[in-house]
Amino acid sequence: MAKYNPVTPELLEELKKVVGEANVKTDAETLDRFKTDEETDPRLMHLPEVVVWVNSTEEVAAVMKLANQFVVPVTPRSAGTSVSDGAIPVLGGIVLNMEKMNKIIEINEDAMYAVAEAGARTIDIQMAAKAKGLLYAGDPCSAESCLIGGNIATNAGGNKAVRYGTTRHQVYSVEVVTPTGEITTLGSRLKKCSTGYCLEQLVMGSEGTLGIICKATLKLLPLPPHKVDIAAVYDDLDKAVTLVPNLVKAGLEPTSVEFMDSNFLKSSCEYSEIKLPHCDEGVCYLIVSMETFNEDEVDAKMEKLAEICEESGAIDVLEADERVWTVRKNCLESTRSLSKIAQSDDLVVPVDQIANCIKRLTEEAKKYDFTMFCLAHAGDGNLHFQHMKGDMSDEAWEQQQHAFHETAYSYVYSLGGRISGEHGIGAKKVYAMEKYTDPVELAMMKAIKKALDPLDILNPGKVMNVY
Amino acid sequence: MAKYNPVTPELLEELKKVVGEANVKTDAETLDRFKTDEETDPRLMHLPEVVVWVNSTEEVAAVMKLANQFVVPVTPRSAGTSVSDGAIPVLGGIVLNMEKMNKIIEINEDAMYAVAEAGARTIDIQMAAKAKGLLYAGDPCSAESCLIGGNIATNAGGNKAVRYGTTRHQVYSVEVVTPTGEITTLGSRLKKCSTGYCLEQLVMGSEGTLGIICKATLKLLPLPPHKVDIAAVYDDLDKAVTLVPNLVKAGLEPTSVEFMDSNFLKSSCEYSEIKLPHCDEGVCYLIVSMETFNEDEVDAKMEKLAEICEESGAIDVLEADERVWTVRKNCLESTRSLSKIAQSDDLVVPVDQIANCIKRLTEEAKKYDFTMFCLAHAGDGNLHFQHMKGDMSDEAWEQQQHAFHETAYSYVYSLGGRISGEHGIGAKKVYAMEKYTDPVELAMMKAIKKALDPLDILNPGKVMNVY
Repeated sequence: MAKYNPVTPELLEELKKVVGEANVKTDAETLDRFKTDEETDPRLMHLPEVVVWVNSTEEVAAVMKLANQFVVPVTPRSAGTSVSDGAIPVLGGIVLNMEKMNKIIEINEDAMYAVAEAGARTIDIQMAAKAKGLLYAGDPCSAESCLIGGNIATNAGGNKAVRYGTTRHQVYSVEVVTPTGEITTLGSRLKKCSTGYCLEQLVMGSEGTLGIICKATLKLLPLPPHKVDIAAVYDDLDKAVTLVPNLVKAGLEPTSVEFMDSNFLKSSCEYSEIKLPHCDEGVCYLIVSMETFNEDEVDAKMEKLAEICEESGAIDVLEADERVWTVRKNCLESTRSLSKIAQSDDLVVPVDQIANCIKRLTEEAKKYDFTMFCLAHAGDGNLHFQHMKGDMSDEAWEQQQHAFHETAYSYVYSLGGRISGEHGIGAKKVYAMEKYTDPVELAMMKAIKKALDPLDILNPGKVMNVY
Repeated sequence: MAKYNPVTPELLEELKKVVGEANVKTDAETLDRFKTDEETDPRLMHLPEVVVWVNSTEEVAAVMKLANQFVVPVTPRSAGTSVSDGAIPVLGGIVLNMEKMNKIIEINEDAMYAVAEAGARTIDIQMAAKAKGLLYAGDPCSAESCLIGGNIATNAGGNKAVRYGTTRHQVYSVEVVTPTGEITTLGSRLKKCSTGYCLEQLVMGSEGTLGIICKATLKLLPLPPHKVDIAAVYDDLDKAVTLVPNLVKAGLEPTSVEFMDSNFLKSSCEYSEIKLPHCDEGVCYLIVSMETFNEDEVDAKMEKLAEICEESGAIDVLEADERVWTVRKNCLESTRSLSKIAQSDDLVVPVDQIANCIKRLTEEAKKYDFTMFCLAHAGDGNLHFQHMKGDMSDEAWEQQQHAFHETAYSYVYSLGGRISGEHGIGAKKVYAMEKYTDPVELAMMKAIKKALDPLDILNPGKVMNVY
């Protein structure tokens, strides 16, 4: 591990010169507030030595220059909605808070793009685009609280990735500060480019280890005015998952295909006090959304969709009204009463391997004492298993979680999958990242990190351990 | 510049042990054949010292290990269709010929992907997909002769990029040999991934400087069975280019939007002996293709398309039959009789800046003695200016080309554009790449290249000069 210096009064003075006294905080309450993100396990939290709020890209660059000069680690922080310990300053030092850089600078209707600072809320960008009849297609489930910079850093996924791709597909260019404190813009507002290395895609998804995203130019799309939502009910998982390729092949371009297993369906129906059809029959639900530009197409598409669902063996096809979506949204909440402590997986496999993966890992989970439910963004192969501790002892819970994940991760890699579809590695999965990543690939990642951040100043201890 | 050793008899012996005697050639005729690609200027050609044909990824890796050990540069070669001197061994050494690794390994209908070796012809992949009712959407204009490995290395564009993106968007994963001779697979057959750095996008488009692509897993899409083609005729460039955003906003998703200026239209009509409407009236043509899955939609879409063309000020809207496409295809050929020596640009600008760019640079070109015609993939902002030398002296031609490009490149960058949309930098545009790229971005590229290829063995002198 790289050797860092402690944050000294001299460094604090220099930081205050850059961002102003009010934006440099070392009081206990502030430090305590920034020791975690969505992490709830105190053993994984870590106090920063100072929290710095920045107001401009130039300030970010100046802070990074100081951090290199004083050899102090910097953890950039967006909204702190990471569930992978991505915003925890695991090695202390400076937490760099981006939340004040929150301006939406431009929504350009004609050329269909938006420019926003890293601290702009994702939902505000969505709404600003919508007000001009356009769509910003990045849509993480935490869109109401998360910030665009964090979305880009983690390559956030969400509900619309089947049709539109993940966050990295919504971005033309990013203004970044490099680990050594230089400012540059990577990428450009182009549909085609063969001019040098594609650094924007390298920095996006690097979880703030290769550069701090300060500003982004985002793609906007035409907003389809019409929507079709159905829920298909299956008593056979294999049949359910044939739906996705069949929809795609029919050219229906679903916007989302969400899977709820029978456990989630039952618990969330009870929690929501909504009795959806078949909810006690051990069935699973696939909720399919489609969008269209032409009102005339709505009925035809609905019909085609229902036809494909029936052909794939759905025992029932319903219109997915507000009640269905309420049950879907309450899934996680509904498990709180079942277990105070829970852990969520974020596995991703090729779409045609979802059924295999759900079946195999559901079977595997039966060997253990925890309870496991499954939700999936089925259209893109992204599985969230919810593990519930119930009344297990701490020791058994940890040991069994570890044992399950050893099996699950090996299996997922054997299918061509990966251990994070949309939440990132953060600090939480560094061990698994180093264990399961191909050694040549991992060595390339480390070589690049070292080349761009020789002192390992920027977000050390995330994604992998360089030293 | 890195210091290389000459290819020695000892190295030749070692190479023969790896790939077999018949696959190592040093005869004068062979060396002469591989001194160039599509480059016609003898001053830019360079002889290799040996040409090596490889049959497997393992052989590629072994050759790279030897090249590092003997400190000899390696230039990977695909079909040699580069127009940017991308396949010329500018520093001598080994030309690594990929053409024997030409197997299409798998076309998977159900999971919609193809696996092919780097030397598979792009058109063969397109045809193999089509035979199964699927689409491989990468479609460079040279698809009949180029190989998929070269397409990926250059991030080739082509005619369908408006709807489907460029080659880098068609690829799930690549099996590569690193500059130091290790084998790894970057990327995976996933729709979502937040597991470490996106190295596949870094290596793709690096023009064979960061890794040799040996095998790729490609995305296949549903093949839309119906097609709508129209040609819109404009007497005003500004009006013509408003068509693209209007099509996109209407949700029409054009597959291609091709622009022909009045010069090309006239010369190609004469050459093709086809008299298209208005071809002598100084107008330009925009040819728009759209695809659809539903036969019922064909008429409605055609109508909507014609309506948008008329609203944008087209003076005529025609069905784009075979004759229109023949004229489009013969454009470059038609200029051969006008000038034996010609040079083509490959500029790219934001789509909303095309009209400005065409007008500004057409005006600029009037200052010079060469003739300049313009073709564009208007849907994605990619402009190809054809410069014709005619009877200019060599000296004046070169001096004026240089002067024009100094102005053009600065201008294109000022619009947020770049100097290559789809042809790559190769050796030909290294000077411009180093001059116009942001210094911080360029330094990042060089740092990454040095980190992954410390001896600068793989394709040196391309994209940029590291030493």
